[in-house]
Amino acid sequence: MSDHRNMALAYVQENQKEFLARMKKLISIPSVSTDPERKGDIQKAAEWLESELKDLGMTRVEIFPTPRHPIVYAEDLSAGKDAVTVLIYGHYDVQPEDPINEWNSDPFTPTIDGDNLYARGSTDMKGQIIACFSALEAIRETGDLPVNVKFLIEGEEEIGGSYIETFIKENPELLACDFFLNPDTGMQAPDLPTITYSLRGIAYFELRIQGPKQDLHSGTFGGAIHNPAQVMTDLLSGLHDKKGRVTLKGFYDKVLPIDADERDEISKLPINEEFYLEQGGVKALWGEEGYTAVERTGARPTLEINGLYSGFIGEGQKTVLPAYAMAKVSTRLVANQDPSEVYDQFKTYLKENTPDTVTWDLKKLAGDFPSQSDRKSKWIDAYLKAAEAAWGKRPIFMREGGSVPVVVHIQQTLGVDSVNIGFALPSDNMHGPNEKIHLPTFYKGIEALVHFFFNL
Amino acid sequence: MSDHRNMALAYVQENQKEFLARMKKLISIPSVSTDPERKGDIQKAAEWLESELKDLGMTRVEIFPTPRHPIVYAEDLSAGKDAVTVLIYGHYDVQPEDPINEWNSDPFTPTIDGDNLYARGSTDMKGQIIACFSALEAIRETGDLPVNVKFLIEGEEEIGGSYIETFIKENPELLACDFFLNPDTGMQAPDLPTITYSLRGIAYFELRIQGPKQDLHSGTFGGAIHNPAQVMTDLLSGLHDKKGRVTLKGFYDKVLPIDADERDEISKLPINEEFYLEQGGVKALWGEEGYTAVERTGARPTLEINGLYSGFIGEGQKTVLPAYAMAKVSTRLVANQDPSEVYDQFKTYLKENTPDTVTWDLKKLAGDFPSQSDRKSKWIDAYLKAAEAAWGKRPIFMREGGSVPVVVHIQQTLGVDSVNIGFALPSDNMHGPNEKIHLPTFYKGIEALVHFFFNL
Repeated sequence: MSDHRNMALAYVQENQKEFLARMKKLISIPSVSTDPERKGDIQKAAEWLESELKDLGMTRVEIFPTPRHPIVYAEDLSAGKDAVTVLIYGHYDVQPEDPINEWNSDPFTPTIDGDNLYARGSTDMKGQIIACFSALEAIRETGDLPVNVKFLIEGEEEIGGSYIETFIKENPELLACDFFLNPDTGMQAPDLPTITYSLRGIAYFELRIQGPKQDLHSGTFGGAIHNPAQVMTDLLSGLHDKKGRVTLKGFYDKVLPIDADERDEISKLPINEEFYLEQGGVKALWGEEGYTAVERTGARPTLEINGLYSGFIGEGQKTVLPAYAMAKVSTRLVANQDPSEVYDQFKTYLKENTPDTVTWDLKKLAGDFPSQSDRKSKWIDAYLKAAEAAWGKRPIFMREGGSVPVVVHIQQTLGVDSVNIGFALPSDNMHGPNEKIHLPTFYKGIEALVHFFFNL
Repeated sequence: MSDHRNMALAYVQENQKEFLARMKKLISIPSVSTDPERKGDIQKAAEWLESELKDLGMTRVEIFPTPRHPIVYAEDLSAGKDAVTVLIYGHYDVQPEDPINEWNSDPFTPTIDGDNLYARGSTDMKGQIIACFSALEAIRETGDLPVNVKFLIEGEEEIGGSYIETFIKENPELLACDFFLNPDTGMQAPDLPTITYSLRGIAYFELRIQGPKQDLHSGTFGGAIHNPAQVMTDLLSGLHDKKGRVTLKGFYDKVLPIDADERDEISKLPINEEFYLEQGGVKALWGEEGYTAVERTGARPTLEINGLYSGFIGEGQKTVLPAYAMAKVSTRLVANQDPSEVYDQFKTYLKENTPDTVTWDLKKLAGDFPSQSDRKSKWIDAYLKAAEAAWGKRPIFMREGGSVPVVVHIQQTLGVDSVNIGFALPSDNMHGPNEKIHLPTFYKGIEALVHFFFNL
């Protein structure tokens, strides 16, 4: 190993406290992108990043305003034209913290308990951003950067904001790169470095079923006026058949089958049914017939009810026949499904199945394509070796159930491949209460990134 | 007509403003019984009634504390042992005012627009209580009471509180009477005095379906962990068959069929499908096959979803697989159904239909028997003639879809029959936003009550 690499690795060892302190600062800003009242915090987070990137020695740092939340861009091209250029993606926005009463500590006060730091946004993905910053700092403070670096950090990932798509399309030269590093996926376990080669797409909807013009007395009108909550349950219940398959017509038409080789590989992954049972705290799993739990969450499309509301939900009772019912419904998509086709399929389903006693309205809140990457690119190979150096173990390849739409936008617009990695663990309660980041994995991740940048 | 009767009727004409002012005072107290934070308002309403009943010349007025909300009792037995004793029922509690943003005026600031006074509790049933007070005041101020009067006014009707049942059982001598006047039903139209001979019972439940131990990321876990909101929609959807019948096993076993005579009579009622279409603002009606809308809401049992909650229901999107789903579900019962049997039927349904991927919990929030009265009692006859005198029209007989459990408790415990009347109109938005009372009907109702007390 080069002296520079060794010095950088030593710098990582010596500066863990500083890295941690920096992460805490970013996490303390409640940059919840879906909440209009947190607009100021979103701005604050963007400005904090701007300042940090300048401190990191980036030669150009710029906040690009968008119709909603700003994009932070930075670059350091000092490695020169012959060196590889990597575009590093990040998002500084976080999920809402509710249900707030299920947190054991304040969601925006980073709280350490044992090896973990608890806070909203810790693992998804402010910790991952800080890991990238820390690796680059370690390299810079001990010599010159061996690669050209660009950062693209958005504030609308958790709301499926589509402005990043426009920004990428409008700035192909600014973002030009040899490949794309996305540290927003994760690892299967603290000792299992992981490379994600497939990300599910998403189509997210809000469905409203309108019944009577206003809430009615359930005694006077119950039985004569169709209850919109009842219609809603009929419609939602009909979206799955008895085999756990989604019933939308055409939903599976473009889904790539899992071939025998890949099924075999997936079956060897260390994630098994036990993992899902334990993480979910449930007695039994569920899902599409004919597939394992890992296949269902990675290689198969699914449909979930994310939210449901109608009528009186306070304490006690209210004998009301509700005026309307609302549901948030999302589908996770796999290659080669198209979110706008799913929207059409859902509308067709509603046209065919909604009785004329009510009216319906379906809004598409987000729609992003699924993504699949080349598992044999040289960039993937560089990370394979970096992770092996950091953890002493060859990384596993896996499909991810979540969505990182930006990967698709960059692949499609810039024509480059991606490396999807990250140091989030399945037990990190991403999107739920008590989100956390595993600190030993975070520090190891910084080391892996140092190796990676030298390997390129 | 006697001079006293005429003088009392003239008093009613001359004192409408005073009656209205009194009603406004009672309505301004937000005595929402289901809301623990309104406990002080409940007490305030009870004390206001105590003071009014004393002003009305009642010889005994007493507030009886209960485990939750107090019962107000009053009596004036000055008519003597040979006169008829009537027990008048009332409830001073009201439904919650939500959805608050659908009100055109403040729910607890009585607001007059044309012939109507808008406020929560105006028609259900503070206005009805004030009508009784006003009729008695008119009679007393112009002579002696021709009947003995007892008042039983509770504060737990809108929460299905069962303490009134205990109170009646523990105080049969206090409440002893010849019959029971319940002014908590209504009229079909401003020119259609109505006598209600059947009230539906109720069994109200809260169902909770628990899935994973906490909210999960819908991308990482969607498709492998059974979504409790999906299970909830499956279960609720299964509660009705395609003919609009409730599927609980045994649900219809004890239901008295509607005989041909009664069907014929019901078909002649002025309430028709148009009425429901207009009140509901819907394009089409719904309900159990083989029955008209009037039969469905009065003579047949029904099941309604009153509330539904799961996951994220705020603005925007959250990609969450919810930890649990909650539903408020109530059934309206007809003679001779038993609410506790319906509870057992529901539990059996859940045992047989809930998958082992989730757990369920069913709470019974209220359970009251249905009631049916003798349509030919002398008390009914006295009201028939009173209403004919006030409106110049013979009252119609009808079944009521709502529940007034106290009628059953009094019938069963004291062994007396009831007269179910009242001056609420179907268009009064009872339990919904913009509840109102029709003032001309309110004033006519006071006249009808004056006639009634003299007829007894």
